[in-house]
Amino acid sequence: MQILPSLSTLAPTLRQRREKLAQRVDFPAILWSGQPSPRNFPKNLYPFRASSHFIYFAGIQLPDAAIALDRGQLHLFADEAPPSNTLWHGETPSRSEIAAAIGADAHYPKTELRSRLAEAATLPASDRLTQLEQADFLGRSVVPVADLPPEHRDRQLAEAIVSLRLIHDLSAIADLRQAAACTVEAHYAGMHATAHATTEAKVRAAMEGAILARNFTCAYNSIVTVRGEILHNESYANPLNSDDLILADVGAETPTGWAADVTRTWPVSGRFSATQRDLYELVRLAHDACIAKIAPGVEYREVHLLAAEIIAEGLVNLGILRGKPEDLVAMDAHALFFPHGVGHLLGLDVHDLEDLGDLAGYATGRVRSDRFGLGYLRLDRPLQPGMLVTVEPGFYQVPAILNDPERRSRYGEVVNWDRLSRFQDVRGIRIEDDVLITENGSEILTDALPVEAAAIEQIVRQ
Amino acid sequence: MQILPSLSTLAPTLRQRREKLAQRVDFPAILWSGQPSPRNFPKNLYPFRASSHFIYFAGIQLPDAAIALDRGQLHLFADEAPPSNTLWHGETPSRSEIAAAIGADAHYPKTELRSRLAEAATLPASDRLTQLEQADFLGRSVVPVADLPPEHRDRQLAEAIVSLRLIHDLSAIADLRQAAACTVEAHYAGMHATAHATTEAKVRAAMEGAILARNFTCAYNSIVTVRGEILHNESYANPLNSDDLILADVGAETPTGWAADVTRTWPVSGRFSATQRDLYELVRLAHDACIAKIAPGVEYREVHLLAAEIIAEGLVNLGILRGKPEDLVAMDAHALFFPHGVGHLLGLDVHDLEDLGDLAGYATGRVRSDRFGLGYLRLDRPLQPGMLVTVEPGFYQVPAILNDPERRSRYGEVVNWDRLSRFQDVRGIRIEDDVLITENGSEILTDALPVEAAAIEQIVRQ
Ligand SMILES: [Mn+2]
Ligand SMILES: [Mn+2]
Repeated sequence: MQILPSLSTLAPTLRQRREKLAQRVDFPAILWSGQPSPRNFPKNLYPFRASSHFIYFAGIQLPDAAIALDRGQLHLFADEAPPSNTLWHGETPSRSEIAAAIGADAHYPKTELRSRLAEAATLPASDRLTQLEQADFLGRSVVPVADLPPEHRDRQLAEAIVSLRLIHDLSAIADLRQAAACTVEAHYAGMHATAHATTEAKVRAAMEGAILARNFTCAYNSIVTVRGEILHNESYANPLNSDDLILADVGAETPTGWAADVTRTWPVSGRFSATQRDLYELVRLAHDACIAKIAPGVEYREVHLLAAEIIAEGLVNLGILRGKPEDLVAMDAHALFFPHGVGHLLGLDVHDLEDLGDLAGYATGRVRSDRFGLGYLRLDRPLQPGMLVTVEPGFYQVPAILNDPERRSRYGEVVNWDRLSRFQDVRGIRIEDDVLITENGSEILTDALPVEAAAIEQIVRQ
Repeated sequence: MQILPSLSTLAPTLRQRREKLAQRVDFPAILWSGQPSPRNFPKNLYPFRASSHFIYFAGIQLPDAAIALDRGQLHLFADEAPPSNTLWHGETPSRSEIAAAIGADAHYPKTELRSRLAEAATLPASDRLTQLEQADFLGRSVVPVADLPPEHRDRQLAEAIVSLRLIHDLSAIADLRQAAACTVEAHYAGMHATAHATTEAKVRAAMEGAILARNFTCAYNSIVTVRGEILHNESYANPLNSDDLILADVGAETPTGWAADVTRTWPVSGRFSATQRDLYELVRLAHDACIAKIAPGVEYREVHLLAAEIIAEGLVNLGILRGKPEDLVAMDAHALFFPHGVGHLLGLDVHDLEDLGDLAGYATGRVRSDRFGLGYLRLDRPLQPGMLVTVEPGFYQVPAILNDPERRSRYGEVVNWDRLSRFQDVRGIRIEDDVLITENGSEILTDALPVEAAAIEQIVRQ
């Protein structure tokens, strides 16, 4: 059953968005919503998520639909549900009701799309079935925009949409606040559940349960693990031991599609060990300093480098690294323990606009570094009011990095391996918040969730 | 991170399965596991679920792999994870470790598959990307087997696999028991959560939370609704009112891929109204009688018709229908209130083997009826020991059926519309259990969950 959003606020927002698009491109654009993806057989479908570009301009998660955007006009192309649909799925809004809700200027059956496509630009859908339909309808190949020359219309459309979606409007920010609030609840639920949980799965269940209880979804596959050094660990099978840290990277998505992305790390026992506390407080120091630095005009790359410097300096103070922090960062020694970027754009996608490659993440003319300590940075732009970014420094002991013979020889002198061995009870720590760039500085959307070690311990022990 | 199942039990089971297949087909078969499906951008994936046919013979949920089955031999085709994988996903088993775990006779990189494909049969994968790869590798189209003539190898393979997967072996039954046990826990959790829940979403969260807490997944999108008359309602937005019934159709799937499928209906208040109790007890009567009838040799169609007769008779006794029950069933009057089939096959898929159309559900030579009261029946076969079926009679007031002018005129005489209007607080009731056919009769795998109205009320009020 398709739920229509509230009419009063949505349609004017969508009108503004397409008028802004019309200021940037003078050719028509067609955006497909996508098809549901089957799980194990054709009628057992994953929960449908519409394309983020479609949602941005159409406001709803309507499967098997398309919109044409042209000079500020919105035309909706969708087929009416067959009458038998009512038996299985209940009353669904008619196309004209949907069109009215989203402020469409016209609406047609989907087949009518074929006659409107000449010269239209588009962006590739996520699902393969829709990609095939796009190529079929347009009579040309539709490829990732990163592979297209600057003069290609699809690429020009992508750049125009990036310039809009980079800067969140008030409607988006209202939804992003809801995603953040729900995510904060989920993390509280996870910390509270820890005392009685025996496995990672039970903590994850409490966290995702809090998201489902609000009728939100998960914006991405949760990471809830005592093996935080496995950066994309999506298994939840490990038992919890009393000296483990739990790293939980869990974010909610509103029914309208807007995401949050938050990580906390806490001790299973409710008490950090001395070594865990030392490294936790170091990551927190980097987290706080990075957020304090965020403001319009600041280069996000500098935020990343600030995290790297603070971590390098902290590791020197703890006797784990040897040398001057700036030299250590220059030789990427920080990346032995902090091998990823300090964050990324956040919006409708948890890595916002990443379907367009680095078009959104990297300012025009910039490309990814081949440096070990910079190459994983997803965002390299000056920050502007209305952008939402994550700040997520971390410390990890990744065997694949630390036991790599080449790195061990390259960094043999600057790492005190003997001292490091005393920190074996720290596998992975990350602290991640969602930070909105404002006119004067920044606002942490997720600051209802504490970061101080003592506050975290208290929540876990409650 | 790919978790390997326990070696000792899996490999002999898989060997038995492929030896049985070899007794049925004398040509090679290639089965693909499938590719993960993207959600909103290419790197944000839905949780991967391998093809059920692949799981049945390979035992593991390995993405982007294929197996060749030939005269009892199993060859595994998969690429090793790239070294960078270790950084993000941790240590993963090598292909040779996987091959050993599943008892493969040989293992190769995936590209080697191209040289083995001549004359091989296959079955279409669920995801479109793999379907394209199948057609590309085989150099021919791969279409749903329902569209193929009997002499086509793909169809012969499908029939052979149906004959195996219809009758669950001991290993499958052990896993199906685990799915059933987890599902029972989820339903207890949902009933217990109701007293403090204000929305459908909160009850759903408690139920799915119980499944996640065991590290199981949902076998299908849950139905948890006060609008049980919407048969495939996947929205959870309604508030709970004290006179509502909650219909919850929620089933767990083990990490190894085996499913359960259970429905209970309970009063939000913990107390059925008199009208709700009358109809609940009628559905329960049908449920119990159908299960009592299940035994080897019984035609499942007769189980369906028994449910129809009991419901027709009960509705006559309640004054809702007029006439003789057998006449009412003959004219499909029961289907005004019980418009679906009494159940289906259950196994790796919640509607087991439904990717093959009705090949598994309908015995050779049988086709779906065009009768309103029979056409939705998913299973029409004599029952055999080792089959697992659901039994799920129901009563619903579906506006699309009851307000349909044609039906209102056809059934105008046999329905007492005035009497029916007194049962307005009953929108939908379904009671569903998972029943294994045994040598002597049947066993309810989900009988740890009560069905009696009084017992249900007591759980909700606890
Ligand atoms: Mn993040
Ligand atoms: Mn069922």
